[in-house]
Amino acid sequence: MSETKQEGITAKKAQDFDEWYTQAILKSEFADYSPVSGCLVYRPSGYAIWEKIRDATDLEFKKAGIQNAYFPLFIPERLLKKEQEHVEGFAPEVAWVTEAGNSKLDERLAIRPTSETIIYEVVRKWIRSWRDLPLRLNLWNNVVRWEFKHPTPFLRGREFLWNEGHTMFSTREEADAERDQILGIYRKITEEFLALPGLTGKKTDSEKFAGALASYSIEHIMPNGKAIQGPDFHSDGQNFAKAFDLGFVDQKGERQLVWQNTWAITTREIGVMIATHGDDKGPILPPKVAPVQAVIVPIVNDQTRSAVLEVATKMRDDLETSFSVKLDDRDYVTPGRKFNEWELRGVPLRIEVGPRDIGQNQAVLVRRDTSAKRPVKIAELKAEVGRELDEIQRNLLSRAQEWLRANVRTAKSYEELKSLISSVGGVVQAPWCGSPACEEKIKQESGAKVINIPFEQGDELPACVACGQTGKVTANFAKSY
Amino acid sequence: MSETKQEGITAKKAQDFDEWYTQAILKSEFADYSPVSGCLVYRPSGYAIWEKIRDATDLEFKKAGIQNAYFPLFIPERLLKKEQEHVEGFAPEVAWVTEAGNSKLDERLAIRPTSETIIYEVVRKWIRSWRDLPLRLNLWNNVVRWEFKHPTPFLRGREFLWNEGHTMFSTREEADAERDQILGIYRKITEEFLALPGLTGKKTDSEKFAGALASYSIEHIMPNGKAIQGPDFHSDGQNFAKAFDLGFVDQKGERQLVWQNTWAITTREIGVMIATHGDDKGPILPPKVAPVQAVIVPIVNDQTRSAVLEVATKMRDDLETSFSVKLDDRDYVTPGRKFNEWELRGVPLRIEVGPRDIGQNQAVLVRRDTSAKRPVKIAELKAEVGRELDEIQRNLLSRAQEWLRANVRTAKSYEELKSLISSVGGVVQAPWCGSPACEEKIKQESGAKVINIPFEQGDELPACVACGQTGKVTANFAKSY
Repeated sequence: MSETKQEGITAKKAQDFDEWYTQAILKSEFADYSPVSGCLVYRPSGYAIWEKIRDATDLEFKKAGIQNAYFPLFIPERLLKKEQEHVEGFAPEVAWVTEAGNSKLDERLAIRPTSETIIYEVVRKWIRSWRDLPLRLNLWNNVVRWEFKHPTPFLRGREFLWNEGHTMFSTREEADAERDQILGIYRKITEEFLALPGLTGKKTDSEKFAGALASYSIEHIMPNGKAIQGPDFHSDGQNFAKAFDLGFVDQKGERQLVWQNTWAITTREIGVMIATHGDDKGPILPPKVAPVQAVIVPIVNDQTRSAVLEVATKMRDDLETSFSVKLDDRDYVTPGRKFNEWELRGVPLRIEVGPRDIGQNQAVLVRRDTSAKRPVKIAELKAEVGRELDEIQRNLLSRAQEWLRANVRTAKSYEELKSLISSVGGVVQAPWCGSPACEEKIKQESGAKVINIPFEQGDELPACVACGQTGKVTANFAKSY
Repeated sequence: MSETKQEGITAKKAQDFDEWYTQAILKSEFADYSPVSGCLVYRPSGYAIWEKIRDATDLEFKKAGIQNAYFPLFIPERLLKKEQEHVEGFAPEVAWVTEAGNSKLDERLAIRPTSETIIYEVVRKWIRSWRDLPLRLNLWNNVVRWEFKHPTPFLRGREFLWNEGHTMFSTREEADAERDQILGIYRKITEEFLALPGLTGKKTDSEKFAGALASYSIEHIMPNGKAIQGPDFHSDGQNFAKAFDLGFVDQKGERQLVWQNTWAITTREIGVMIATHGDDKGPILPPKVAPVQAVIVPIVNDQTRSAVLEVATKMRDDLETSFSVKLDDRDYVTPGRKFNEWELRGVPLRIEVGPRDIGQNQAVLVRRDTSAKRPVKIAELKAEVGRELDEIQRNLLSRAQEWLRANVRTAKSYEELKSLISSVGGVVQAPWCGSPACEEKIKQESGAKVINIPFEQGDELPACVACGQTGKVTANFAKSY
């Protein structure tokens, strides 16, 4: 960063969340706008976060026996149309290629909004017998959904990066068993890496993926009290298998259709993470996904520079065998300004070292999450930095969990539901009869939709808050981002 | 692979290279055709090769201080047009998005054929002073060039995966110094990982990248004697900087334009590698990029199965801490068929173990590259497998180097050049005066173009083979793939 660009965040997170968020994304240099509305530029430190999310998730996929592949960016229009619900869901947001060079194409090509249709058309040829199953494929790629709503960096855009898992099984049981495995991986990544808790549950029919039998999601609650969907999992049943005639010969020699799932985690998580943990100084990155975990800032003047830098360099060399660490040895920026910069970039731990510290064989650790300062002996620096980073990781998750707990409330009546949604927001758990009519009515009248339905349900079946008939489930209601 | 799909390659590499290549790609299950002509499906074992190339290259980039980023897939038409030579070079191959959902777009959006224009438009805002330089960015992404020529899997297609490096420097000297560093990384990856030698040199003006001052390439020679361009490096000078007004304030406080380079390695290398090392049984993968480095095939019957599998499983568990190893314990496929399958998939080393081997505490190593068999003690298996894989890696490179050397010939006269090109193909080194007229004449009359000009040139300046005037350089001539 050059000298002229130093400027902190001017908005307060609690007062003007949207403005704070935009500044936190841009001024931290995680991302920038591009000349194409809704398409984000991931600057190096933003993209490095995605690499960490991708690599950690990919490791879990590989352990689970899932294999990566790559399928074309383009989907011919006739293929996209093969599954009725699917095309109806996606067509309004598809970007179409109609020309190449100086030629008009004979058939429009969709830029993949998701790759089900092209995958199933191709893998039909790969599967003959039950021995070829399960086939569990995953892609890490870019997809395009031409949203006409207001784009927000990371959270809603026209192009985003994600994983798309596409798996095929011989039986419904096997396909269903994959759900907890994949949601477990996503929960591990969101909680243990991004320090983001969420509410896991089943989507309603009106909110499920276009073409699926059932969808499941992890929902996050943003600081402004609105829910935003995180990673998801879709049981596709045999819908696509029917449309694409995707079958296999079973052990008895009979032809069957496969059972399928699809699932995804996207770059949206970066935005949710920044929004959740950040403070008025800017983002705070959980150490496990921070491109720079600790920054060493030497406190020097012209007389002490070389002596201090020598110690600081040794510290850096020692620490970087275990951590991602940076020594900020710029001689044209004051220490105070460096503090601000690295805070703005969300670096979880600062290590200050000056002449007096060196006299005492110590350095000072400053936590980004609590601003707590603690001197530590240089001989114990490595162990102490490890301990402190673990502690920051834990603290960010526990803060976010506490905040989530405080923002999930229960309503027994419709009035209570409406009042909670309009006054404090967050998630309101309330009984619902399961009818789309009541879901729609509540949405219209309160602004809150069913974000999902928790797996664990109590024994009692209270009356639906909207119609008074016997409730089927307790659902999570919230305004959505 | 299911039982019904086992079928070896029916074409001979030496007799019908094109057919052999297609079968080697498809039957090895590295790739498959897609419903979009020219767009390839990378099946898991093909994509795993790319992941290995990408990860090894990325590590080198990171060591060199290069940072990854991500820029949008779309480039507005007005941006693509900003640099004249660039748009003229790419426009004939651009895929255009003109519609989204039900709307016509106001401006056509190019699917990136390469990202110079959108990058430079954005990073202009990031660079203010010389302190912000160098800025060395790299993207790993997909690009689209709508080729109208016959597509060939991995070698020529409409969508491919690559890295695109885009770097900006304060001075021409710094920019130029990057050339050897990057070409060095590419040579390391192609030689040490893919076991692919190449001829490094400078492209002629007629063959350089659209918008560059000068281009450099590593050229591979295919088994059919034709040259194919591998990784490349482009000195862009200040061409794009002028078009995009991409400047900075130097140490004297004066505004200057940046100096730029761009460079790339693509999925084409996978195809060159398969073509180069493969034999009539199929591809042979260098161990460093093989998704499966060694396969254990137990030689069993119903009586011996459980005893042999117990030993084989222990071997697998022991080996997989150091190598990527697979135990093929399928009970419905004969060992002979397994041999064929894994040979077809290019797995570099086979480990056979049967009851008699176990009696002698041994297993048998079978090399894919030489078919050599060697019994080794089970206690020494891990060390022996490591040694054998190293040896295979070395042998593949040395074979390919020998082949390349034998296929680079020298011509002193035009007749000799034409006769070599038409009889044996390969590369012919011949003196050239440097004029585009002679380059074109030779191309028209011999079919060979200047693939590049070696950095190291002899002292004598013989006469240009085409015009007889004093030659400027000895150039590499070849038919291109």
